[in-house]
Amino acid sequence: MVFKKITLIGTSEESFDAAVDDAIDRADATLDNVCWVEVEEMGVELDTADDREYQAEVEVAFELE
Amino acid sequence: MVFKKITLIGTSEESFDAAVDDAIDRADATLDNVCWVEVEEMGVELDTADDREYQAEVEVAFELE
Amino acid sequence: MVFKKITLIGTSEESFDAAVDDAIDRADATLDNVCWVEVEEMGVELDTADDREYQAEVEVAFELE
Amino acid sequence: MVFKKITLIGTSEESFDAAVDDAIDRADATLDNVCWVEVEEMGVELDTADDREYQAEVEVAFELE
Amino acid sequence: MVFKKITLIGTSEESFDAAVDDAIDRADATLDNVCWVEVEEMGVELDTADDREYQAEVEVAFELE
Amino acid sequence: MVFKKITLIGTSEESFDAAVDDAIDRADATLDNVCWVEVEEMGVELDTADDREYQAEVEVAFELE
Amino acid sequence: MVFKKITLIGTSEESFDAAVDDAIDRADATLDNVCWVEVEEMGVELDTADDREYQAEVEVAFELE
Amino acid sequence: MVFKKITLIGTSEESFDAAVDDAIDRADATLDNVCWVEVEEMGVELDTADDREYQAEVEVAFELE
Amino acid sequence: MVFKKITLIGTSEESFDAAVDDAIDRADATLDNVCWVEVEEMGVELDTADDREYQAEVEVAFELE
Amino acid sequence: MVFKKITLIGTSEESFDAAVDDAIDRADATLDNVCWVEVEEMGVELDTADDREYQAEVEVAFELE
Amino acid sequence: MVFKKITLIGTSEESFDAAVDDAIDRADATLDNVCWVEVEEMGVELDTADDREYQAEVEVAFELE
Amino acid sequence: MVFKKITLIGTSEESFDAAVDDAIDRADATLDNVCWVEVEEMGVELDTADDREYQAEVEVAFELE
Repeated sequence: MVFKKITLIGTSEESFDAAVDDAIDRADATLDNVCWVEVEEMGVELDTADDREYQAEVEVAFELE
Repeated sequence: MVFKKITLIGTSEESFDAAVDDAIDRADATLDNVCWVEVEEMGVELDTADDREYQAEVEVAFELE
Repeated sequence: MVFKKITLIGTSEESFDAAVDDAIDRADATLDNVCWVEVEEMGVELDTADDREYQAEVEVAFELE
Repeated sequence: MVFKKITLIGTSEESFDAAVDDAIDRADATLDNVCWVEVEEMGVELDTADDREYQAEVEVAFELE
Repeated sequence: MVFKKITLIGTSEESFDAAVDDAIDRADATLDNVCWVEVEEMGVELDTADDREYQAEVEVAFELE
Repeated sequence: MVFKKITLIGTSEESFDAAVDDAIDRADATLDNVCWVEVEEMGVELDTADDREYQAEVEVAFELE
Repeated sequence: MVFKKITLIGTSEESFDAAVDDAIDRADATLDNVCWVEVEEMGVELDTADDREYQAEVEVAFELE
Repeated sequence: MVFKKITLIGTSEESFDAAVDDAIDRADATLDNVCWVEVEEMGVELDTADDREYQAEVEVAFELE
Repeated sequence: MVFKKITLIGTSEESFDAAVDDAIDRADATLDNVCWVEVEEMGVELDTADDREYQAEVEVAFELE
Repeated sequence: MVFKKITLIGTSEESFDAAVDDAIDRADATLDNVCWVEVEEMGVELDTADDREYQAEVEVAFELE
Repeated sequence: MVFKKITLIGTSEESFDAAVDDAIDRADATLDNVCWVEVEEMGVELDTADDREYQAEVEVAFELE
Repeated sequence: MVFKKITLIGTSEESFDAAVDDAIDRADATLDNVCWVEVEEMGVELDTADDREYQAEVEVAFELE
């Protein structure tokens, strides 16, 4: 059994929880067997966004078949 | 005056805030004089949980008598 | 173009999101051109607060004129 | 010449060496030109495994053509 | 559900694997519900030991009832 | 032979050395076989103390019987 | 909006700047929407190279469609 | 004698060296007694810039009078 | 309530304790509401000093009004 | 009593344990009073080796006379 | 001009300051042009010492001729 | 086969690349079999230098015979 980890950055105009969920939703849509997620960094983008954009960088671990 | 720190991991199916509160609630139930908490890591368990389980690892500092 | 970063700690009795927003609100009130924010640490103060006080230490980056 | 690094987690019921080899075997099976491997973390899973499952998270570097 | 983590240092005159197992054996003997273990540091003591003594510092996570 | 490590924070109104000794004194009073101590962090509390309170967070390692 | 990060190591016999550009050129050739790059490590290979080979490990962030 | 450190991010379309110099130039223009600079992070912005914009985050130490 | 942190480096020809106090004295002289201090690094300058000059880099946290 | 630490990288075609022992053997052959060893990094070289070459970077501490 | 850094661990039965000085004294006795020292770690040995033995691991930088 | 690593700090009034090369030149002049170099830190000295002096701290790995 081997797992692989990839790094995604989810975004939300609502909250950090929603930014993490955004990244998990994306992973779930393209990967089978997503097992766990580790939050690496959190930040807020203000300059290039209309409003405060919450961002969460996460590592997504999934099992390789 | 001496403080001691222990490491707990709280869980919640709702949010990271609730996962941190879960760990603090447990600490409050068994320890007097809880003074502060530091969040060490956050993650989401998907594999062994029914739904997304938010987890927060925290260090809990309390004053020894 | 040069950016400067300062370190603020926002607080809230509600949530970590609100603690981060508290720090950004303060930065926005005194600085032009706030560009992005990085969350450095999160914790909860229990000892000297009436209730659980959520705290978020953030680095705020803004563009110098 | 450009290298790419990916993150794998190998597992074994025998030893950490075998867990690292498990990840390298997987990389060798799907990638040409694997050049080196860096061990990032080691752990043991007890809860969801029949026995002690040794795990090794490694970064695998390979040369892109 | 709340987990607690404690830090143990196992020792062995044979190997690092055996040093990790030494710490897990000790945890299993006194704690129910040991869930996972993270290896934090490895070293070898030569000065105060008869022979090379392999040491592994691990964090042991177990579920609180 | 297995060691355990716990985290204490000693305090002193005199010096960092005295803050470290404060933590070791406490450990010696309640634990047999204290073997070594590692200094993790040092700080000074001014807000809630009458005077400058020097604090030292240390990890205390002791041998389990 | 979700970003993904991958890790590349660019090389150059001229300079570290050229090694970073080498990695970015490769990313640009195969990925749309490359947004930013973070330099993680820099080194020089002498043993297996004809001359000094400057190497730069970078994380490349791009927007997923 | 007391020093203070501030964090600046210099930018350049040419090189990392020029990005560091950009930050030092800014510090020199507004501060007396700049003593030394430590490079903290380097990156390249591609998304919001016309071309590759090299960025260097530095800590600038200067002596307070 | 928002706190701000700044970085100072105190110096002393006597001891590290005195170097930390040197930085706190400076902060107290120019800032109201200094709340706590975290020691980041300690070093000794020998080259450009008459004698051994003990240095302590600290982060000073104070409450903004 | 003063200790000195040096950094060695041992190699083995068998295992990480053997790679660590390789470094200790070398230290023992040229230094008196080797006291302890700390494992800093582990990796596997595949590109320039006939087979998998296990490598262990260690810090070796010995007492100066 | 090139500097070299070596790692020493000084010891004292009195204080951490004295342990750092112990390492600097040793460096001064065998090296010309010692320029600066960085404190890396501090600890206390209790097990193998008669009394509390304060230890300071330092990096010593000196100019090569 | 055993490698040893030493730490050098190269300097240049021109660039960081030249500061790294300065350290490698020194290593090449006194050591056989230099294999690779890792850049650890970069900084600029302004206070005690005529002009901006770029500095690069590197770890140099060479094979022991």
